[in-house]
Amino acid sequence: MGAKPRTRPGGRSARVQESVHRAVRELETEVGRAALTVPLIAARAEVTPSTIYRRWGDLQELLSDVAVERLRPEGPPADRGSLATDLETWAAEWLEEMSSAAGRAYIQDALAGDREGGNAGQCSAYAVEQVAVLLDRAAERGEPAPDVDTVLDHLVAPMMYRILFRPGLLDAEYARGLAHTVLTRFPTEGAGAGK
Amino acid sequence: MGAKPRTRPGGRSARVQESVHRAVRELETEVGRAALTVPLIAARAEVTPSTIYRRWGDLQELLSDVAVERLRPEGPPADRGSLATDLETWAAEWLEEMSSAAGRAYIQDALAGDREGGNAGQCSAYAVEQVAVLLDRAAERGEPAPDVDTVLDHLVAPMMYRILFRPGLLDAEYARGLAHTVLTRFPTEGAGAGK
Repeated sequence: MGAKPRTRPGGRSARVQESVHRAVRELETEVGRAALTVPLIAARAEVTPSTIYRRWGDLQELLSDVAVERLRPEGPPADRGSLATDLETWAAEWLEEMSSAAGRAYIQDALAGDREGGNAGQCSAYAVEQVAVLLDRAAERGEPAPDVDTVLDHLVAPMMYRILFRPGLLDAEYARGLAHTVLTRFPTEGAGAGK
Repeated sequence: MGAKPRTRPGGRSARVQESVHRAVRELETEVGRAALTVPLIAARAEVTPSTIYRRWGDLQELLSDVAVERLRPEGPPADRGSLATDLETWAAEWLEEMSSAAGRAYIQDALAGDREGGNAGQCSAYAVEQVAVLLDRAAERGEPAPDVDTVLDHLVAPMMYRILFRPGLLDAEYARGLAHTVLTRFPTEGAGAGK
């Protein structure tokens, strides 16, 4: 989806990334996030600390990269036969995952170590990808549908805003209601103008 | 607006907060954000480092508090005679401020040092406050208007989402277009059901 690749080309580089990411995930479980340090991660991954500093800059940037990998969707969203049902279900599931304690921590990590915006852009690219699958299916069925940007602006954005800034106001009903609102208030918005 | 007060009661406590915040602002300008440390800030503020650790926990929480103070609006939004003009103008100005390099850094600081959500909630409370002023004015003029939550969901949230996750897609035209969209697609949404 136009996002920059998370893995540099080359076998050794990919192996270093994989072992360092795995070390972070294991150590998070074993000692907790607050106790993570670059030397600790390096020892577990069997690389030198300077390998980590050279590649990631600092701990926060590494945690940002790991968080983005964890936010990657596991597969395309389920096909439930109509855009209304597909979008409501996807929204409720997305909200549940992202608003969990783990989801929220990953989003904050992704943003915190990411002054240049690449990792945050990747989070958004995941949502674009999933929504595009649902909208393409609707088009195949001949259903009217808004474009991807409209769904991002009026469904994904309000959910993310509440996750980050108004966490008391979140439940599946809210997600489903927003999905319904997008399809009724913006039934064909922007569609045909390219996504 | 129901947000928790940023200053604890008591004269000494308020003076400590003021001098520490001022030290952060001065040192950010003089040495840059990346060079800030708790001992450096403590020396400038003429308090002990342990005063800062006791009150703020760590540097990131202190920077989060300072960032939220900097995001506080300077006063109520201007009255331009109609809700459409008021909301479009406010949206364009809000976006310009928040999407600047400084605005973006403050938002990320506010989120990063704030695992409990108080500072992020304060950012949202500022927007609620400003939008409520515009909607109250509209009500006094007898203009139809949506409620605050609708404006947060479909105007503030999409702008914030793009600031954080899709920074290439931002300009005043986008802000004005969203404001227009909210008033035309949700002309009286939720109004009368509480604010």
